[in-house]
Amino acid sequence: MNTTTIPKEEFQDRIKKIQSNIKAAGLDACLVHATESDMAHVRYLSEYWPTFETAAVFVPAEGEAVLLVGPESGNYAAHRSFFKNIETMIEYRESAEPDYPGMSFLTYPEIVSKYFAKKEIKKLGVVGWQITPLPVYMSLQKHFPGVELIRADDAFWPLRYVKSENELNSMRKAYKISELAVEAILNEIKPGMTEFQVIGIAQREIYKHGAEYEGHSLYCFCGPSTNNAISRPTHNKIIENEVIQLNIGARVNGYSSSVGLPFSIGPLPERKKRLVEFGLEAHLKTIELMSAGKPAGSVVKEYEDWVKAKGFGQYMLYGPCHSIGMMEVEKPWMESTSEYDLQENMTFQVDTFFYESDFGLRWENGVIIKKGGVEKLSSKFMKLVEI
Amino acid sequence: MNTTTIPKEEFQDRIKKIQSNIKAAGLDACLVHATESDMAHVRYLSEYWPTFETAAVFVPAEGEAVLLVGPESGNYAAHRSFFKNIETMIEYRESAEPDYPGMSFLTYPEIVSKYFAKKEIKKLGVVGWQITPLPVYMSLQKHFPGVELIRADDAFWPLRYVKSENELNSMRKAYKISELAVEAILNEIKPGMTEFQVIGIAQREIYKHGAEYEGHSLYCFCGPSTNNAISRPTHNKIIENEVIQLNIGARVNGYSSSVGLPFSIGPLPERKKRLVEFGLEAHLKTIELMSAGKPAGSVVKEYEDWVKAKGFGQYMLYGPCHSIGMMEVEKPWMESTSEYDLQENMTFQVDTFFYESDFGLRWENGVIIKKGGVEKLSSKFMKLVEI
Repeated sequence: MNTTTIPKEEFQDRIKKIQSNIKAAGLDACLVHATESDMAHVRYLSEYWPTFETAAVFVPAEGEAVLLVGPESGNYAAHRSFFKNIETMIEYRESAEPDYPGMSFLTYPEIVSKYFAKKEIKKLGVVGWQITPLPVYMSLQKHFPGVELIRADDAFWPLRYVKSENELNSMRKAYKISELAVEAILNEIKPGMTEFQVIGIAQREIYKHGAEYEGHSLYCFCGPSTNNAISRPTHNKIIENEVIQLNIGARVNGYSSSVGLPFSIGPLPERKKRLVEFGLEAHLKTIELMSAGKPAGSVVKEYEDWVKAKGFGQYMLYGPCHSIGMMEVEKPWMESTSEYDLQENMTFQVDTFFYESDFGLRWENGVIIKKGGVEKLSSKFMKLVEI
Repeated sequence: MNTTTIPKEEFQDRIKKIQSNIKAAGLDACLVHATESDMAHVRYLSEYWPTFETAAVFVPAEGEAVLLVGPESGNYAAHRSFFKNIETMIEYRESAEPDYPGMSFLTYPEIVSKYFAKKEIKKLGVVGWQITPLPVYMSLQKHFPGVELIRADDAFWPLRYVKSENELNSMRKAYKISELAVEAILNEIKPGMTEFQVIGIAQREIYKHGAEYEGHSLYCFCGPSTNNAISRPTHNKIIENEVIQLNIGARVNGYSSSVGLPFSIGPLPERKKRLVEFGLEAHLKTIELMSAGKPAGSVVKEYEDWVKAKGFGQYMLYGPCHSIGMMEVEKPWMESTSEYDLQENMTFQVDTFFYESDFGLRWENGVIIKKGGVEKLSSKFMKLVEI
């Protein structure tokens, strides 16, 4: 039973495309990795999402791929994924490293021998290099002596840049749910609540409206800690006349979303209000600069020049956009060094962060790149909110 | 501002203890790692919990340790941890690998040179081997040529086995909240709800009662997928006269909990009811076998012999217990191969899983090892529930 609305054929098409890239890169196969918190690559190919354990998809240049899961996940993987070839491997066990006495597992060469038509691996691509567990890497070195292990993220990542209509619909739904969660918070938040309690409201709404999980670790914070670029909520209490920052995202069919805004209960001091207002102006400026065909680096340069010309350059930490898809932050980032053009149906999170020593603020909304502009995935809270 | 009730002095004492183990192991320093989903080692030493990025604590054999965080987390880490020495490093960036043009970062040797009294590293321990990012490992090899990189989990893990009174109180609170969440589910669950909606009830209650996060990925499932040893919830609907499995855990001050039970709406068919009942009997048997001084391996052997003598051996997947603390599953596991004795104030999750081809069930409750027996961290739902 497949839990997603992405049809099996779309997954199979993705595997065909990566196989074509594997061949073009001169590789014999690729091992594509996932962890519990960074599950995107494996879910993209198989719908499988590990829990407690890690996982990989072993994709030969030709023939059928094999889903590799931890010792406890054989049944789970068979229920969740359409893959016919599934193997449990000790390499993908939990970090508590159980021994599993009495259980036996295949090695990588044994898997090649059992499933692949071409039995010899000379060049093996590793996808998800950043999240590949060290024991997996050591095991590959041990069991494939003489095999060249090649970082192969470039053979895979670009497949995920441009989204299909099924992916876009999942993201549209995820953003809609995020907006409903933000709305519930704005209706219910009171001074004296803890940041954790505010997140509880969001969690309640996310599942109520059909999301499968949070799209990222949700956060709410109030006061000086708003100058954290990223953070986690605490037991701190919400107070009046202070910047309260929300970053709330639901996940649908594996696809993330996030809606972020600074707001206040009662008016903000003038200095803070001014930076919040300027942040929104800058946020809208970025969106105005985006359309299919535009070089990503030039969006950033035009944005940064505009911010500096307005005299706010010193409050800016980094680029105004990153890609969003299964992970809330995905490749490609949009930075001044970026060397690609925006393409239709790429999806970006416009992410506008400004900070001073004693507070900060972040506006976050999603967009789909279209000819001549963008489709906004969320826009309900691109406004100043004072409760 | 420190968000935990574990006092700063307790963290500092932990660092002193690992330094003593580092010296005893003949190492010059240890790098202790964490990811977003596997944050325990770093949080144990620093209270810091990464989000989006990864992190490490660089502990010299003598002198002050340094908290290493990702490029976006400098302010967050300074707010959250009591550490005075905090550095941002590109090695701990997000998996989307931003370039951060214009920002510069120290290398490992530069950090040694800036902070450590002893400037030469010959033997470097790596703690959290299983979750150490590959780019960190490659960077260590590059920047520390000739330095011996040694897997040093054994120098660190045993520090976390026996819990302090502050840790135990955090866990007591976490289990209490988990029980409140299970109670809310049992009051509100109805046929036709999706598994996701059931999890939404738990999420709402967890934050309402003061938890900081889930203790593990929560799950509810109904029907054949209960034979998954571990799993994730889906859009499947809850139905009557079928096993419904809950595994619900809250997190308090970093410490996990989990309460698991199988139950049903309306009566179960006799065959399923019998295995659910036997599972509970086996669960209580494990608890009866545990007390300070008992060899862990013998608990497992006595339990397995008992299950086999009762004729249920073929429905058993693995050992009946694992340690619980910051992670819901921690070292040490309790397996037939285990070679340690239970000690007072070790904390275990009694985890009783039985399965057939078309269903399964899991009873989960926490215990603290005491002289002559255990203190139960949860016990309210060690009973057969039919709604």
